[in-house]
Amino acid sequence: MHARPLLTALLATLLILGPVCAQAQSSVPALVLGHMNPDTDSIISAIAVAHLNNKRGIACQPAAQGPPSPETAFVLKRFGLTAPEVVHDVAGRKLYLVDFSDLAQAPKGIGEAEILGIVDHHKLGDVTTPNPLEIWTWPVGCAGTVIKSMYDFYGVEIPKNIAGGLMCAILSDTVMFKSPTTTEQDKKAVEALTKIADVADYKAVGIAMFTAKSAVEGVSAKDLVSRDFKNFIMNGKKIGIGQIEVFDLAMLDKVKNNLYQEITRLKAEGRHSVFLLLTDITKGGSELLFVSDDPSVVEKAFGKKPDGKSVWLDGVMSRKKQVVPNLEKAFK
Amino acid sequence: MHARPLLTALLATLLILGPVCAQAQSSVPALVLGHMNPDTDSIISAIAVAHLNNKRGIACQPAAQGPPSPETAFVLKRFGLTAPEVVHDVAGRKLYLVDFSDLAQAPKGIGEAEILGIVDHHKLGDVTTPNPLEIWTWPVGCAGTVIKSMYDFYGVEIPKNIAGGLMCAILSDTVMFKSPTTTEQDKKAVEALTKIADVADYKAVGIAMFTAKSAVEGVSAKDLVSRDFKNFIMNGKKIGIGQIEVFDLAMLDKVKNNLYQEITRLKAEGRHSVFLLLTDITKGGSELLFVSDDPSVVEKAFGKKPDGKSVWLDGVMSRKKQVVPNLEKAFK
Repeated sequence: MHARPLLTALLATLLILGPVCAQAQSSVPALVLGHMNPDTDSIISAIAVAHLNNKRGIACQPAAQGPPSPETAFVLKRFGLTAPEVVHDVAGRKLYLVDFSDLAQAPKGIGEAEILGIVDHHKLGDVTTPNPLEIWTWPVGCAGTVIKSMYDFYGVEIPKNIAGGLMCAILSDTVMFKSPTTTEQDKKAVEALTKIADVADYKAVGIAMFTAKSAVEGVSAKDLVSRDFKNFIMNGKKIGIGQIEVFDLAMLDKVKNNLYQEITRLKAEGRHSVFLLLTDITKGGSELLFVSDDPSVVEKAFGKKPDGKSVWLDGVMSRKKQVVPNLEKAFK
Repeated sequence: MHARPLLTALLATLLILGPVCAQAQSSVPALVLGHMNPDTDSIISAIAVAHLNNKRGIACQPAAQGPPSPETAFVLKRFGLTAPEVVHDVAGRKLYLVDFSDLAQAPKGIGEAEILGIVDHHKLGDVTTPNPLEIWTWPVGCAGTVIKSMYDFYGVEIPKNIAGGLMCAILSDTVMFKSPTTTEQDKKAVEALTKIADVADYKAVGIAMFTAKSAVEGVSAKDLVSRDFKNFIMNGKKIGIGQIEVFDLAMLDKVKNNLYQEITRLKAEGRHSVFLLLTDITKGGSELLFVSDDPSVVEKAFGKKPDGKSVWLDGVMSRKKQVVPNLEKAFK
C-alpha cells in the first residue's frame, strides 16, 4: 500500500485543525463536600479544596453534610474560618468529594450529581462516574496532607487561616501523630503549615483542640455517637462504625450504658452490626463496644474474645487502618 | 472537670511515644499493569510507573495483559524499551493499575490481589479496595501526561527512552492532539518529553507510529478488533466497545464484513451489545458498527438514526469522552 498521499493529507489536516476542546462552563459553582457526620478533616478539606479550585479557575463553594462538631467549631473559630453551608441533597449539582468515596457516606441525590473530582486518603469506595475526573488519593493520615501538596503542585499560596485549619485537620486525624496512620508526609505538612499559619506551638493548639473534642459532659449519647459515625457495606451487609476519642476512657464511664443503648438503637434501624470505638488517646488503644447479628466477627477480626458487649484493643486507634480492613476480612 | 493532670499525661505520652508506623515490606515486587487488550498508553505507563516507583523505593515490575500491538511494538523498538511480561492471573500479588479502574478490564484474580495504587485518566470504575491507596487520576488525554507530572512531583529524572515512550503514548491517545480528549497539559507534556527524549520532530514519530497502527492488511478481523477492545457493565448489561483508527476508512472497506461478523461473534459470547468504532483520523470522525439486543440505544445515545448495521458519527474520535458517557446515559 502506498501511504505517502494519505500521510500528506493527514499532516495538512493536523496543521489546519486544532483540537476540539469545547468544555461546557457552568455558572453554578460546584459543591465541595465531605462525608456524613463531618469531622474536622472533612470540613476543612472542603473549605481548602474550594479555595484552591477557585484559584485554579474552577468555580466552587464548600459545603458539609452537617454542622461542625465541637472540635471543628474550635478550629474554625481559632483561625477565623466560616462553617460551610449544610447541604443534604446534591441532585443536579457538580461535586468534588473530599475525605470519602463511599456511596454509604454520600448525600441524597449523589446518583443525579456529576462528580468532577475526589480528594481522599481512605480505601477506594464504590463511587463510580460516567466521565473522566480528577482524583488525588494518597495513603496518608489526612486529606489535609494531600491538599497541602496540591497547593504546592498548582503553585497557589495557602492563606494563613486555611493553613491553620489544615494543620489542625492533620493533627486531629493522626491524633497528634500517635495514630498508626501517621506518615512522614503528614509530619512535614504540619511543619510547613505551622509556619504559614504563624502558629508558635502546634502541640498547644492540638491539645486545646482535643480538649474541645473530649468535652462529653452534658452531651447526649446520640450526639456523641453521631459526631463521628460512618456506614459501610461489607459483603452486602450494612455496618455502622463510630468512634469517640477522649484523653482518658474514665471520662466515658458515666455514659457508657447510654452509648450501648444508642448503638443498639442504630442497629435496629436496619444494620447488621454497629461498632463503637472508645479511643483512649493517652493509653493509645480503644475499647470496642458492639451489637451484631453475628458477634463472632469480633474475635474473627481482632483475634481477641470479647467480654460480653465489649473488648479492649490495645494499640488500636485508627478505624480506617486497624478496624475497617479487619472487619471486611471477617465479613468475607 | 479538671483537665490539667490529663493534659500533662497526654503531653508526656506524646513526647515519649512515636507513631506506630509498622508497614509490612514484601520482597515480591508489585506488578504494574494496564487493561485487557493493552494499547500503547497501557504498556508504556506500566513501564514508566514501575520505573518511578522503584526510584521511590517501592519494588515494582511492569506487566501487561497481552503482547504489544503493532503500534506499541513500533514504539518499544523505536526507543529501545522491552515489552513487559504478560500476566493473566494476579491472585496474591500486590498491584498498581494503570489506565483503568474497571473490574471488567482487570485480569483474573483481581479479587485476591492487593491494589496499592491507580494511575488513570478515565472515568472512575468499580474497583474498590479494603485499604487506603495512592490514586493519581486526571481528566487529561493520556495516563502518560499524569505520569510526566508524577515524575516532576517526586523529583525523579525521566530516562530518555521512557520519555520517548510516554511522548508516543500521549500522541497515540490524543490522535496527535486531534481528539477532543486533548488538554493543554497533554501538549505541554509532549513538548517537555520530546526534549528529554531528544526527538527532533515529534510529528514525524507520531505519523510513523500511526502508519504502523494503520497496517491492517493481512491481519485477521479477530486480531483487528481485539487490539483495542474494552468491556463495560452498563446498567447491569455487559457491553463491548472496540476501536480501530486508520488514516482513511477506505483502508477497511475489504474487511468491514469480516469485522461485522467478528463483533456478532463477540456479542454471542454473552454481551448485550458490541460497538466498533472505525475512526478516520484524517476526516476526524467514526463509523460506528454495532450489534445489540436493543438497537434503539444507538439513536438514543448519538441522536442519529443508524443505516442498518452502522452510523457515521461526525467529529467522534474518543470512546472515553464521546461514546462511553452517551451509551451509559442511553442504557439508564
